[in-house]
Amino acid sequence: MLKSGPSSIDKFLLRKVREVVGDAPVRFVYGEANGDGVLPFQKESVDTMFIADRRALFELAAYPEVGFGDGYASGKIRIGGDLVRLLESLFYAIERKKNESWYQRAWARWQDWHQDNSPEGSRRHIHHHYDLTSDFYGLWLDARMVYTCAYFPTPSATLEEAQLAKMDHVCRKVQLQPGDDVIEAGCGWGSLALHMAKNYGVSVRAFNISKEQIEYARARAKAEGLAGRVEFIEDDYRNIKGRCDAFVSVGMLEHVGAEHYKELGNVIHRTTGDSGRGLLHFIGRAKAKPFSRWIRKRIFPGAYAPALSEAQEVLEPWNYAVLDVENLRFHYAKTLEHWLNRYEQSVSRVAEMFDEEFVRAWRLYLAGSLTAFRVGSLQLYQVVFAGSAYERIPWTRDFLYRGSKQTKEEPRWIHAMS
Amino acid sequence: MLKSGPSSIDKFLLRKVREVVGDAPVRFVYGEANGDGVLPFQKESVDTMFIADRRALFELAAYPEVGFGDGYASGKIRIGGDLVRLLESLFYAIERKKNESWYQRAWARWQDWHQDNSPEGSRRHIHHHYDLTSDFYGLWLDARMVYTCAYFPTPSATLEEAQLAKMDHVCRKVQLQPGDDVIEAGCGWGSLALHMAKNYGVSVRAFNISKEQIEYARARAKAEGLAGRVEFIEDDYRNIKGRCDAFVSVGMLEHVGAEHYKELGNVIHRTTGDSGRGLLHFIGRAKAKPFSRWIRKRIFPGAYAPALSEAQEVLEPWNYAVLDVENLRFHYAKTLEHWLNRYEQSVSRVAEMFDEEFVRAWRLYLAGSLTAFRVGSLQLYQVVFAGSAYERIPWTRDFLYRGSKQTKEEPRWIHAMS
Repeated sequence: MLKSGPSSIDKFLLRKVREVVGDAPVRFVYGEANGDGVLPFQKESVDTMFIADRRALFELAAYPEVGFGDGYASGKIRIGGDLVRLLESLFYAIERKKNESWYQRAWARWQDWHQDNSPEGSRRHIHHHYDLTSDFYGLWLDARMVYTCAYFPTPSATLEEAQLAKMDHVCRKVQLQPGDDVIEAGCGWGSLALHMAKNYGVSVRAFNISKEQIEYARARAKAEGLAGRVEFIEDDYRNIKGRCDAFVSVGMLEHVGAEHYKELGNVIHRTTGDSGRGLLHFIGRAKAKPFSRWIRKRIFPGAYAPALSEAQEVLEPWNYAVLDVENLRFHYAKTLEHWLNRYEQSVSRVAEMFDEEFVRAWRLYLAGSLTAFRVGSLQLYQVVFAGSAYERIPWTRDFLYRGSKQTKEEPRWIHAMS
Repeated sequence: MLKSGPSSIDKFLLRKVREVVGDAPVRFVYGEANGDGVLPFQKESVDTMFIADRRALFELAAYPEVGFGDGYASGKIRIGGDLVRLLESLFYAIERKKNESWYQRAWARWQDWHQDNSPEGSRRHIHHHYDLTSDFYGLWLDARMVYTCAYFPTPSATLEEAQLAKMDHVCRKVQLQPGDDVIEAGCGWGSLALHMAKNYGVSVRAFNISKEQIEYARARAKAEGLAGRVEFIEDDYRNIKGRCDAFVSVGMLEHVGAEHYKELGNVIHRTTGDSGRGLLHFIGRAKAKPFSRWIRKRIFPGAYAPALSEAQEVLEPWNYAVLDVENLRFHYAKTLEHWLNRYEQSVSRVAEMFDEEFVRAWRLYLAGSLTAFRVGSLQLYQVVFAGSAYERIPWTRDFLYRGSKQTKEEPRWIHAMS
């Protein structure tokens, strides 16, 4: 606690912070005191950000996003009130202002230049995130360990139901037929590959560079008696060879990096040719913008969420026609609500596995992602595509909605439900 | 008829033509004779192209697409067999070869440079096509005069039913609510604007630079008692002012020209802001490529069908998120089948209105477009978008398919039906 109140340096830094967050309804308390150091120029606020010391304050002022993320993770920045609501109001206020200083931009540029999505870089990045142990993810994912946006036929569906519905939505969209050979690029813990083989009569070769995930998936295939029809391969998407009828990738494009989209397209064309079809499911943007700096630094090194025009670089050079794009942004917000709730129920276990800093960093990552999908800073696109010689294009999309649980209800609007 | 058979110049030109069309199953007959002049190096063929004289042959060899189009229109090139089937086999053979010579490419480049989509150029282009008289279009369009891709809930729907279904599909996709103000950019003869006002309780301001279409639409609004709720305005999309809740444009983007997409996006943002939503319905491509040279020269000056990544230049600069993309390519092929059939039944009337050359040119335009959609050289995209503050995003797309006629049937595949 600072006995004498903030110094003139501290006041300058606090003013800088206030400039960044604009008119967001946030109260800043410096010195981590119980109400000490409240600055007089603040209006009535809902949530409070407690900043422990000058170093945390300086980093917040100089590199707001990373400064906040690291400060929150280290415990030097604490939040009084609701984290998601605070992040939401910060987002809107910063959007209204759009006031990055030259040094923030320069620093961001430097960071953006140093993103490495080569095969070696990718392996490092994926290891950083996905090899954290299956036990950890098992604490807050659904029973099938699906670590991508779910599809909620109704918003009250459980996470388990919604992940199952997502897998069926994907399988129907790519019109799997018994006997099809499917390649899955980036298969996580294997749930989609196993689901396709088990329920759609297809053979799957599923690729992933996370050693721990592949081992987990192989054990599942064996346990479920599907090892003959699902092959889990620990390799980079760039090394995928052979032929297939359908190419599916759910939640991998985010890790590919925009400069490698043509390589991914090349792999898709090499394996499916002009008569193939496929689906890309990925986190994207309405407008091109780098991924959150803090998340890239601490959680997802190498991540990039493309605008649709950028993602088209995978498909257009090979003359793949887009058949269908669906935006599931609110489904990801709902998925993240479930994950965050489950995560909070397991934090003591997470703290035992790692430490308190890890607990806070991952809370912020989940809450920040939830906010980003809710406010529309991130989108979730499912893109169905087909080559010019693909012959089973459906006449309408009606078949995706047969037997839907909502058929007799009125349309539901997102904002009536949140 | 050439008594002595083709000269060595003719043989050279015929060889050039054969090089262009590759292994297409087409028989060439030079001199418009009944079987004379068949070249010995041809394999068994289905359809026959009769070429009357050296000038037509030269133009076919030098500028294949325009040479064929102009030759067909003038009657110097005649087709024995089925025009659509011939065009289809030419398309596939040329796709396989992709062998434009340097002078074909240079000439095409020159043509592409000289496309003028300024307000004056646009007015000239639109006049060229759409002011051909409503009587002419009335011979082969549906009763409501809808001159864009229809939506066939089932492939056996009539053209009238399918145009009605298309208008409802569009209205549901943009979630029209009673009281909404709608702007329509490029309104044709006014059918969609009138349909929206009549059936969805909205007010519409509809823009078009075709004087004849606007006058026709105004008369319809008056006759249907809708003049108070639909205003038809003869003006360029760049001059649209005021505010609206939803922005709809069906079949105009093709005439905007890629270099003006940002201007269109500016108009959309100026009128709908961040809380608006809208729909763009347009002819596009899987991969960027200039529009058919002959069609631009003779039928649609200034036309360009964008790849999705290009069309995103309308939306991404303004942070509009894509909610839904549907590809209705086969619905346009079906629409064109209907138009071509009706057109063929009216050719004597068309010849009275214009002349035989016009009859043939428009037959080729309709048959060529039908082929392009069938083989996948052209696509038809419906793109639904919304600003970040739009609050009524539907939870799923299920609501588009309520009460669909197909609900109890098995999925239908395109190729099983054609």
